[in-house]
Amino acid sequence: MPLSPDQLAEIEESRSNPQPTLRAVAPGMEAHLYKAVPVLDHGFVRVVDYMGDDAAIVQAARVSYGAGTKKARDDSGLIRYLMRHWHSTPFEMCEIKLHVKLPVFVARQWIRHRTANVNEYSARYSILDREFYIPAPEHLAAQSKVNNQGRGEVLQGNEAARVLEVLKADSARCYDHYEEMLSQEGQEGLARELARMNLPANVYTQWYWKVDLHNLFHFLRLRADAHAQYEIRVYAEAIAEMVKDWVPAAYGAFEDYRMGGVNLSGKGVECLRRMLAGEEVTQETSGMSKGEWREFEGVINGSQT
Amino acid sequence: MPLSPDQLAEIEESRSNPQPTLRAVAPGMEAHLYKAVPVLDHGFVRVVDYMGDDAAIVQAARVSYGAGTKKARDDSGLIRYLMRHWHSTPFEMCEIKLHVKLPVFVARQWIRHRTANVNEYSARYSILDREFYIPAPEHLAAQSKVNNQGRGEVLQGNEAARVLEVLKADSARCYDHYEEMLSQEGQEGLARELARMNLPANVYTQWYWKVDLHNLFHFLRLRADAHAQYEIRVYAEAIAEMVKDWVPAAYGAFEDYRMGGVNLSGKGVECLRRMLAGEEVTQETSGMSKGEWREFEGVINGSQT
Amino acid sequence: MPLSPDQLAEIEESRSNPQPTLRAVAPGMEAHLYKAVPVLDHGFVRVVDYMGDDAAIVQAARVSYGAGTKKARDDSGLIRYLMRHWHSTPFEMCEIKLHVKLPVFVARQWIRHRTANVNEYSARYSILDREFYIPAPEHLAAQSKVNNQGRGEVLQGNEAARVLEVLKADSARCYDHYEEMLSQEGQEGLARELARMNLPANVYTQWYWKVDLHNLFHFLRLRADAHAQYEIRVYAEAIAEMVKDWVPAAYGAFEDYRMGGVNLSGKGVECLRRMLAGEEVTQETSGMSKGEWREFEGVINGSQT
Amino acid sequence: MPLSPDQLAEIEESRSNPQPTLRAVAPGMEAHLYKAVPVLDHGFVRVVDYMGDDAAIVQAARVSYGAGTKKARDDSGLIRYLMRHWHSTPFEMCEIKLHVKLPVFVARQWIRHRTANVNEYSARYSILDREFYIPAPEHLAAQSKVNNQGRGEVLQGNEAARVLEVLKADSARCYDHYEEMLSQEGQEGLARELARMNLPANVYTQWYWKVDLHNLFHFLRLRADAHAQYEIRVYAEAIAEMVKDWVPAAYGAFEDYRMGGVNLSGKGVECLRRMLAGEEVTQETSGMSKGEWREFEGVINGSQT
Repeated sequence: MPLSPDQLAEIEESRSNPQPTLRAVAPGMEAHLYKAVPVLDHGFVRVVDYMGDDAAIVQAARVSYGAGTKKARDDSGLIRYLMRHWHSTPFEMCEIKLHVKLPVFVARQWIRHRTANVNEYSARYSILDREFYIPAPEHLAAQSKVNNQGRGEVLQGNEAARVLEVLKADSARCYDHYEEMLSQEGQEGLARELARMNLPANVYTQWYWKVDLHNLFHFLRLRADAHAQYEIRVYAEAIAEMVKDWVPAAYGAFEDYRMGGVNLSGKGVECLRRMLAGEEVTQETSGMSKGEWREFEGVINGSQT
Repeated sequence: MPLSPDQLAEIEESRSNPQPTLRAVAPGMEAHLYKAVPVLDHGFVRVVDYMGDDAAIVQAARVSYGAGTKKARDDSGLIRYLMRHWHSTPFEMCEIKLHVKLPVFVARQWIRHRTANVNEYSARYSILDREFYIPAPEHLAAQSKVNNQGRGEVLQGNEAARVLEVLKADSARCYDHYEEMLSQEGQEGLARELARMNLPANVYTQWYWKVDLHNLFHFLRLRADAHAQYEIRVYAEAIAEMVKDWVPAAYGAFEDYRMGGVNLSGKGVECLRRMLAGEEVTQETSGMSKGEWREFEGVINGSQT
Repeated sequence: MPLSPDQLAEIEESRSNPQPTLRAVAPGMEAHLYKAVPVLDHGFVRVVDYMGDDAAIVQAARVSYGAGTKKARDDSGLIRYLMRHWHSTPFEMCEIKLHVKLPVFVARQWIRHRTANVNEYSARYSILDREFYIPAPEHLAAQSKVNNQGRGEVLQGNEAARVLEVLKADSARCYDHYEEMLSQEGQEGLARELARMNLPANVYTQWYWKVDLHNLFHFLRLRADAHAQYEIRVYAEAIAEMVKDWVPAAYGAFEDYRMGGVNLSGKGVECLRRMLAGEEVTQETSGMSKGEWREFEGVINGSQT
Repeated sequence: MPLSPDQLAEIEESRSNPQPTLRAVAPGMEAHLYKAVPVLDHGFVRVVDYMGDDAAIVQAARVSYGAGTKKARDDSGLIRYLMRHWHSTPFEMCEIKLHVKLPVFVARQWIRHRTANVNEYSARYSILDREFYIPAPEHLAAQSKVNNQGRGEVLQGNEAARVLEVLKADSARCYDHYEEMLSQEGQEGLARELARMNLPANVYTQWYWKVDLHNLFHFLRLRADAHAQYEIRVYAEAIAEMVKDWVPAAYGAFEDYRMGGVNLSGKGVECLRRMLAGEEVTQETSGMSKGEWREFEGVINGSQT
């Protein structure tokens, strides 16, 4: 259970007191505000604040005085045009602030997205909680045999049991020792900034993360992708659900042009034209490497890997 | 008069319709929303949106679940501590979006602040208005004789009159020709992306500019400074007035530690200690260059230049 | 002629004195160093420094100790893989520094690429030269009738002559007045930071611009594109020629996957599969808007607009 | 011993083959190139590449064609002026690329400096080595009693022994289990991207890190500071030694104005003036909080804390 009764009460209180504002309000997002969406075994994502809506994208693209056209359909067409032609600056005019609780090894991937603002819980200053990510059995995957950077089959039987046992026991022991080293009963107590080094990468941390919509889409494209590590993908998917309710037109364009779209190389386009003209093209006659051809076939056959 | 009746009506309409939100609301900022503060002869600044308030800074610094302590005094003390010790990330958790109308030569200085989001009115796509910055007589300054990058005395008499006449006449003529070149009466009309090159740098442009509070403070420190060019300083000052009403505690800390604060070099600190110990220190015995010593004297005598 | 004899002598001197270094050296780039490639009527681009080469991309991707594999073919395959899969960080390990002379209206587009370092010639501090961009007759294009943001036919006859005359006369007059206002013969002389506002946007400025290879590729993709304004495209093309000699493998991958590649939306991929399966698809049955369909046809027919 | 004989041989080879270049060469930095400076028990820093030197800063500040003035003294004065007045863009014209081996908990602090390029060794793709940071006994500090974010006395006797024993045993056990989980002898082997979560934060990772000189100075100011955690400070100090040899004039200015300099608040300056005028000022009459006054006293008494 990620949140304590106190924390839930704080969230309830935050949600109980609407105030009038003149700013753009996105009703779909108000419904999400402050609520914690559970992710993994102890993690969550919750929206803490947001700026703008679909109309704000249009307004900025037009550098206009008021809230833009009143016809949502025109706005949506413009938003699709902007997305299709990589006019990214209007999307930067929306901003979102999230509070995320996540394992450290996920946080280390996440932080590589540099164009964002972050305040992380400080383990120099404070003591981390005894909370560790232990994968559910169905996510305990073997190393992929074809992709050095991916997962294969789910582990079974004794091997699975052994892995779970190890992860649990090592986490628990490391945390026991962390507490012992910090303890000051009759002794000095090791500095927090040192003691934390005994905690494994599945310990949970948390942060406030603020990002504009353009950079959030970039994050989602990479992290909600089928090739992303499962443990970060579930966060991306939880965020995507919120974004869909926040800026439905922009999210629709993102889904069509980015998540559902593909990139073809010059060679790929050339092959495609030959195929549409009736020619049979093979890897040998394509000018592509085997890897490229396999990916190209995935695109045209719908079995994208 | 910077705004047309239509634009004023749009602003009025935007201000007439408060909606409930669960987000943090800064009453001081709500009062500013959408209103255009006139700057220079045709320019303005207006807040179009904002995210966060003083409490949001504290909340992020603590990575907390609710809205932080209820005691404004504790929050203010923490904010001062964060500012004093250059803990900048909590200030990045507030964001502001401005609509600014400004001369192109000011825009060129402004845009050098890279950590911000911008949508500028496109002169490739649209036609610029006939609006040019013509300095008020009291701002028609001569080149400084001591500072290659500054202003000296205000021009007088014939010279001032001549300068004003030139600026007005050249602006008008360039704009007439811009319109003529664009005109399609019986001819093709030059492409907008080319015709714009005939417009001088005092023509007005406008943009949406979005920035976080930390980077905004950096902008204000440099551009509201006495050494900044007058024409950008007035924009910075107008923005500073809004920020003061938005995040009073953060702005107070900024004023004390940044705007009102000074940097002393290692040599400067050394001299200071000698002076406090009763020694008479001169430029010759200070180890500083003449320029450094002059600036140091400015700090300790209150005649900062 | 963009460079004075003095400047050419300085460049000659810089090129006359090779020194030993242990760093990665790209012979193709050494041949370009310091030389000014003329662009437009008074502009240029010249490489002032560079860091890294193709092998440096591979070395960083592998976080290896030495210079990577010695087989250029393996390196090239890895570089293509990185480019195809948007692994952008290894490309950020190469850096280039350029000295560019360019019209102000081009500089205003260019500076929107924020992830770069810039030092521009200061017109607050110094006096700009009497150099203005006047388009060659074959680039004097009319406004496009189909694209609000583009060019149509080349202007002819009297209209072309009239436009050229206006651009030349206004530039000359504005510069004369700029000089007059600055002049101190018997008067004060207007501050440089003010006088510059009388100069039109076709006046030349110059800057040092430093950027990593990933962000440079992004710049080139947008600015060497057929839809970019001609006056910035010629700079992008001049830079592309240098990059090709600097990092041939990376540039090859960029050409195939970015410049020559296309993005297809989810709808586009769906239509493609139907067409490859023998179905006749029209705009009406595609689910695309007219604009999208036109662009899609451009991709599959090779008449990309 | 951080480097294997193979790695040392690779480094030797890289150093054995100087090549001619026309670029700016910094002899002081050439002497450092590729060599690994040991840091902590298994870490190191080594320069892999650099761009520019002191003259390159001057050249960019002047947007000049050649290598700037030949008088090093003028250059040094200009560099000091630029540093004193926060003209940061010329310093961005120098760039450095480092290869760093460091514990994960240090890497997590380091990565918060966002304006840099990073390629980290991937534990999704590869297997980490059995190398853990175990503090030397003299760095085994207790939690500070006055500063929640700092260290106090060094641990003694049994407590110290116990802590070392725990850190060593937990690291070893976690790594044993990491290897076991990855092992494929008769079983599938857990995916690397999952197995890594069992490794504690004192395990070593490595990365290529590339940053411009301005942002490097910012990093050094925060991380070579007495308040920084010891384990990152030693890296900052090792880098500072290299920078001193690379750009001696810029480093000198940095030392005087940043590392050795102080910031005083408006209140602090006011107190100082009163004290220089002979008044006795106490915390009560200063208008400062106790914390501020303590820091202010540190500045003027030279006992900065």
